Amino acid sequence: MKTRVTTLFGIEKPIVQAGMIWCSGWELASAVSNAGGLGMIGSGSMYPDVLQDQLQKCNAATDKPFAVNLPLLYPQVEEHIQHIIDAGVPIVFTSAGNPATHCQRFKAAGIKVVHVVSSTKFALKAQAAGCDAVVAEGFEAGGHNGREETTTLCLVPRVAEVLDIPVIAAGGIYNGATMLAALAMGAEAVQVGSRFVASVESSAHQAFKQKVISTQEGDTLLTLKEITPVRLIKNEFYQRVAQAYERGASKEELAQLLGRGRAKKGMFEGDLVEGELEIGQASAHLEEILPAAEIIDRMMRDCVAGSQRLFSMAHTTK
Amino acid sequence: MKTRVTTLFGIEKPIVQAGMIWCSGWELASAVSNAGGLGMIGSGSMYPDVLQDQLQKCNAATDKPFAVNLPLLYPQVEEHIQHIIDAGVPIVFTSAGNPATHCQRFKAAGIKVVHVVSSTKFALKAQAAGCDAVVAEGFEAGGHNGREETTTLCLVPRVAEVLDIPVIAAGGIYNGATMLAALAMGAEAVQVGSRFVASVESSAHQAFKQKVISTQEGDTLLTLKEITPVRLIKNEFYQRVAQAYERGASKEELAQLLGRGRAKKGMFEGDLVEGELEIGQASAHLEEILPAAEIIDRMMRDCVAGSQRLFSMAHTTK
Repeated sequence: MKTRVTTLFGIEKPIVQAGMIWCSGWELASAVSNAGGLGMIGSGSMYPDVLQDQLQKCNAATDKPFAVNLPLLYPQVEEHIQHIIDAGVPIVFTSAGNPATHCQRFKAAGIKVVHVVSSTKFALKAQAAGCDAVVAEGFEAGGHNGREETTTLCLVPRVAEVLDIPVIAAGGIYNGATMLAALAMGAEAVQVGSRFVASVESSAHQAFKQKVISTQEGDTLLTLKEITPVRLIKNEFYQRVAQAYERGASKEELAQLLGRGRAKKGMFEGDLVEGELEIGQASAHLEEILPAAEIIDRMMRDCVAGSQRLFSMAHTTK
Repeated sequence: MKTRVTTLFGIEKPIVQAGMIWCSGWELASAVSNAGGLGMIGSGSMYPDVLQDQLQKCNAATDKPFAVNLPLLYPQVEEHIQHIIDAGVPIVFTSAGNPATHCQRFKAAGIKVVHVVSSTKFALKAQAAGCDAVVAEGFEAGGHNGREETTTLCLVPRVAEVLDIPVIAAGGIYNGATMLAALAMGAEAVQVGSRFVASVESSAHQAFKQKVISTQEGDTLLTLKEITPVRLIKNEFYQRVAQAYERGASKEELAQLLGRGRAKKGMFEGDLVEGELEIGQASAHLEEILPAAEIIDRMMRDCVAGSQRLFSMAHTTK
């Protein structure tokens, strides 16, 4: 399957693995790239020396292109950028900040830049900043999310319509049917998060992976909107946040309750009670922890089969 | 385009017009049915004698099948049911209640029954109750909505996978691309709300129609979750609700603030300040008030064209 995104990245299959904190190390990224997708290291949860080590290992594990996700508000962003350039990473996905901040610097180093957005307005800004593509991510996605709560179905078709650069859809995409739906919306690739958290190669704690595949519809909600909106599993920590809202807690009280390090605690250390468990709505439909290559193969097979079914449906009149 | 839903209803095109309060009278329903879709009268905002009159007018205006949306918690539901049966309405969409309540009674009268759900669990209940199809409606839809906040992309593929009866997708569907996406998810028809509110034949107040086509991304939010979750335009009334939340208002205070008759005031009488303005996220992408037949023609044309593009994309390897 060839699109402007597969051409841009030099990959075979239009599936991008999201660079998620605590889940996306070199093992997952290289497995995805080796299977023909675009693997991505999530640098937001790594110290610079950890990122450097991960980049070396990923380069050793695959000859295929892979990417790094870089949250622009990361405190040691300069050191991260230097390691990314030094390691010869060909593609960077920027998020959580102004897309113009480092875009031209990456491009001068020959690096393709993709920015993650949750609105059409920011998609246009990313294009104006010189980005090569955008990820348009909907409300159903896990982790940090937009305040406007626009869903993938309401966001992606519009962004694809108004932008000249290609669009990668994210939020709620976990199998062949949802991948096909995203392509129908006008996306030219999909970014997949939750499905890859529950993969063999993910660096998430085993207890968190098990929790992810046992969630049911309605088990995640977007919360902490006054700080940074984040989609979490409704565990004990989440319930304390909900109780704080009920008693009319201030933004400061909420920030204090959140504290620091809860995402690591939950997702990397497996504390399902006190941890912040970031995952998308799609987790409700996951039932097994699978190897990354098998996730990609199943998505591709079912997406192509679905496109045939859809074509026949659209051309049957009797 | 033929699917199990077009066969079930005896219609040409798999587009159902949602039976929305204050917007869906006989003029809209008959226009949609005459254009080959399934038009629907929204009985939730009508007194029984008004419904009776609307049914007579709709029967006079079209020879094609049309439906009635019946909220099961409607106070005078018995009188509504009698008028529906007497008028020979072939299809009823039930919502907001237990699908088993009147299902067998309608079926005994030869009426097809479709139930509106916001979760897989309730979709299975509707199937068990004997419904002929379900509408699976996501978080992005306007008006009343589920508490679990599951989006169309996360809901429809799962419901289509586990049910034997056909699925109609709703929430966020407003053009050919989103219709194609819904069919890619496994739906066999789409139910379209916001797009038909801003139609020539809609009974919404002209000021509300103008407001709908002027909204931008992020201008609607789901609120009043403690009473019944409802997606509204963020007008002055909405801001008062938001302020009530900020000061930690109780459910009773919220109910008192809402009062009665605000949906009529906003949507039918055009009071954009004090009214409750129910509309979906898709409204952000609407720019014109169009005749119902043109809405349907554009959706069909773009959906079919999109299915060809998608098929080609899925089968291009070079």
